[in-house]
Amino acid sequence: MNGAELALRAAADMGVEICFANPGTTEMELVGALDSVTGIRGILGLFEGVVTGAADGYGRVTGRPALTLLHLGPGFANGIANLHNARRAHTPVVNLIGDHATWHRSADAPLDSDIEALAGVVSRHVATVSSSAHTGSTVREAIAASVGPPSGVATVIVPQDAAWGQADLHDVGSFDAAPDPLDADAIGASAAALRSLDGAKRGRVAILLGGTIRRAELDAAARLRTATGCTVWIDTFPAVLEHGRGLPAFDSIPYFPEQAIDALADIDTLVVAGTRAPVAFFGYRSVGRSSLVADDCEVIVAAPGGVRGHVALDAIIETLELPAAEAAPNVEPAVAPSGDLDMFTMGAMVAALQPEGAVVVNEAATSGLGWAIAAGGAPPHQTFSLTGGAIGQGLPCAVGAAVAAPDRKVLALQADGSGLYTVQSLWTMARESLDVTVVVCANRAYRILQMELHRTGNDDPGPQARSLTDLGSPVLDWVALAAGFGVPGMQATTLDELRAGIEHGLATEGPYVVEALI
Amino acid sequence: MNGAELALRAAADMGVEICFANPGTTEMELVGALDSVTGIRGILGLFEGVVTGAADGYGRVTGRPALTLLHLGPGFANGIANLHNARRAHTPVVNLIGDHATWHRSADAPLDSDIEALAGVVSRHVATVSSSAHTGSTVREAIAASVGPPSGVATVIVPQDAAWGQADLHDVGSFDAAPDPLDADAIGASAAALRSLDGAKRGRVAILLGGTIRRAELDAAARLRTATGCTVWIDTFPAVLEHGRGLPAFDSIPYFPEQAIDALADIDTLVVAGTRAPVAFFGYRSVGRSSLVADDCEVIVAAPGGVRGHVALDAIIETLELPAAEAAPNVEPAVAPSGDLDMFTMGAMVAALQPEGAVVVNEAATSGLGWAIAAGGAPPHQTFSLTGGAIGQGLPCAVGAAVAAPDRKVLALQADGSGLYTVQSLWTMARESLDVTVVVCANRAYRILQMELHRTGNDDPGPQARSLTDLGSPVLDWVALAAGFGVPGMQATTLDELRAGIEHGLATEGPYVVEALI
Repeated sequence: MNGAELALRAAADMGVEICFANPGTTEMELVGALDSVTGIRGILGLFEGVVTGAADGYGRVTGRPALTLLHLGPGFANGIANLHNARRAHTPVVNLIGDHATWHRSADAPLDSDIEALAGVVSRHVATVSSSAHTGSTVREAIAASVGPPSGVATVIVPQDAAWGQADLHDVGSFDAAPDPLDADAIGASAAALRSLDGAKRGRVAILLGGTIRRAELDAAARLRTATGCTVWIDTFPAVLEHGRGLPAFDSIPYFPEQAIDALADIDTLVVAGTRAPVAFFGYRSVGRSSLVADDCEVIVAAPGGVRGHVALDAIIETLELPAAEAAPNVEPAVAPSGDLDMFTMGAMVAALQPEGAVVVNEAATSGLGWAIAAGGAPPHQTFSLTGGAIGQGLPCAVGAAVAAPDRKVLALQADGSGLYTVQSLWTMARESLDVTVVVCANRAYRILQMELHRTGNDDPGPQARSLTDLGSPVLDWVALAAGFGVPGMQATTLDELRAGIEHGLATEGPYVVEALI
Repeated sequence: MNGAELALRAAADMGVEICFANPGTTEMELVGALDSVTGIRGILGLFEGVVTGAADGYGRVTGRPALTLLHLGPGFANGIANLHNARRAHTPVVNLIGDHATWHRSADAPLDSDIEALAGVVSRHVATVSSSAHTGSTVREAIAASVGPPSGVATVIVPQDAAWGQADLHDVGSFDAAPDPLDADAIGASAAALRSLDGAKRGRVAILLGGTIRRAELDAAARLRTATGCTVWIDTFPAVLEHGRGLPAFDSIPYFPEQAIDALADIDTLVVAGTRAPVAFFGYRSVGRSSLVADDCEVIVAAPGGVRGHVALDAIIETLELPAAEAAPNVEPAVAPSGDLDMFTMGAMVAALQPEGAVVVNEAATSGLGWAIAAGGAPPHQTFSLTGGAIGQGLPCAVGAAVAAPDRKVLALQADGSGLYTVQSLWTMARESLDVTVVVCANRAYRILQMELHRTGNDDPGPQARSLTDLGSPVLDWVALAAGFGVPGMQATTLDELRAGIEHGLATEGPYVVEALI
């Protein structure tokens, strides 16, 4: 076998099943190895941002890494934005980048660039394969680094002579993910802070859940809240949030820092699980600070990002010998709204129609408020949010989620502006018959930027500023775009049309696009 | 005024007229400044690769830099691939990247990343503005660095507090581009090698033109060839090539290294103007070497990349006191072909119909052979090629060329696979009513990769390798995609339809897409 085959054999042996790919010449041996090595399915994206965002979505659903296969520095660069989101989500992802043969590097050929510099910006682990015999062990180390915990993005650079060179098949070793690390001091300090909160202290001690928030984290936080009287907050943009009727529910930290600082002002001890102390998304002149908690608030990181929060919370519960949580409150089911189609009724309609177990990939930006309000009444579901702020995550993430969970419905709530960064995702949805219903929230503007312009004090933007935040000229036709990529769709201008479109999308196999004019 | 306004005032004073933009929150002061400072027009792209590729196209036409305006590290990353091409083309481009306010950097906010590391990979000059008072001088230095010579990509990082902070208007100083440097030793060595070539030496001394090859470089090379008997080669992928009937014409170095090595085998002295010694695009196992010239060939760099080659060639001519060149050969005009529509007749048809002065942006990849054969018979035109191999350059470059040359027709010969990386370019063409006729060469495959698979010895690709190089399932509908972005178009399945489509595109204002099924 050659080095490329050994690399993929090692990955398959460690449980990797999917390789999202947009290869080039220097990856041809790795492409060939997908056929000669069994167990890994290659899925083509038309653009690298689709590939990396799909790997992020896959990893968020499964907790396991997919491979990406990317072409040299420029191809990798096209995937950086969504790897930035994956980095912030602590999603396990393993990138394979084909590089020039080692002897060709000094020629500084046209496609040559500093791949390690690019990879280092978004990866917690970067390695270059030293020879064909070492492709397996190098891939193994990268997979282990990506799984962690803490989990994250790992990148392997494969010089083409390492891919084509001969390698003996050898066992790269068994693989067991390490246990989640526990910081005994932090657990002890958290337990001390949470012990017997009375009157004045109630509400002054809070738990912050972030990163991947599954049922176990929600249950542990609910139990702590019930027994101690603490409050619980959810990060503004968690990687994964299990949500819906019957699940413990907590408020999210508001996006704009003024509101967040106000909401968190009374907290004097913050126990953080699966994330870090909250900071403002942007540094506003009018706010003048980054931290969202008070200056004298003590932040205890019980579990950092990329580590399962419930392990730490369970340890705190055990330390405190707490009773079970109260039952989750009985929330009214979301019902289909009536009236005009706007961002609120759109969101309420999605919440009313989404089936149990759905994965809702939310890159609705300013248009997502309606769904956020209503989704607590929807059946239990998972939602993904934009962890790193690099827009163009939604449609690729939906691709990866649908590959990871073929038995579940995936709903992509997609702002129109951000959806256009990686619109090529639609083709992979059609090619792989992925069961994704895309609801495009078409306000035909970069609405958040119009808001941000005002926040800079620019209350009367001139024609250039108006133009650079406007998407209405010419009008984008999402139904035509979808058709161009092989995906059927329809435009909804009324709530009835929106309902019909979503119901059709959910009832049929494969992708469907509903462009909601809001 | 604030720092953002001072930055744009400095750029406008130095002759910058265009800012291709895809801004975010940290660029809002710079967006606002486009209205309060006169002289710079902002042009919106839906994706950063459109923005940077457009700046590349603009710079290739004008020789002057446009600004780009990009959002933090992830936004910049989306533009890296086309900046990589601009780097290889030595195109003057000046990127402005808004960064978080300096006091917000330590918070490691969600969108934070190592912008300098990313920028360094593709820029010959990277600077971070130190305060609002220094925005003008920092932009001035970047523009000067981008113009050179040697010319290239420069990047300025503008922390948001430098953009919103107060600045006094001050003159950043006058600006005159430096003269092209002349290496007297290289000129002397070149002259000595080219002096009085007789029998055996004729053909053993060659000139290589690369980078930006305008009439002046062609004329100088022709004069040297006439007088000395040297041969002249054109780089495989020059940034700009003036070409067509009445212009001196020379052979291009073949793409595949076996053919290139064979073509250049007899050269013992290579005088390089505007580029560097030629190397293989990829390092093939079966070739085993990077250099395309013989090991004992002496390479004299008379003018490196980013420096005008004719200045050095004229100095050699002056040293040798050479007579004028013979007249360019009389080439038969390209005529419209007949027969079936294929890549050869497609290219011949384009060459027959393209008007004088057209800018032909060639990212046709394997489908471009027909045009390359026929274009020598077309009226004089400029053509741009894929300098860095980062595909997705063609449509954005056409945007920039059309902005730079509103009085000329732009033809984009676009392979379908590479066109999809930055297909969002079509929207900017429609928004700005750019006079671009796009001919999509739709072979519905990554044909070059199918060829490269075979070159690795994989003569019978398995289903996965076939799938990862195939674009036929589902079929991409370029007419629908164009309509989605607001651009009219048609599909051509015959030569007559292709002719009608191109003629319509050239006869009408604004963009038009012809999808040629070849």
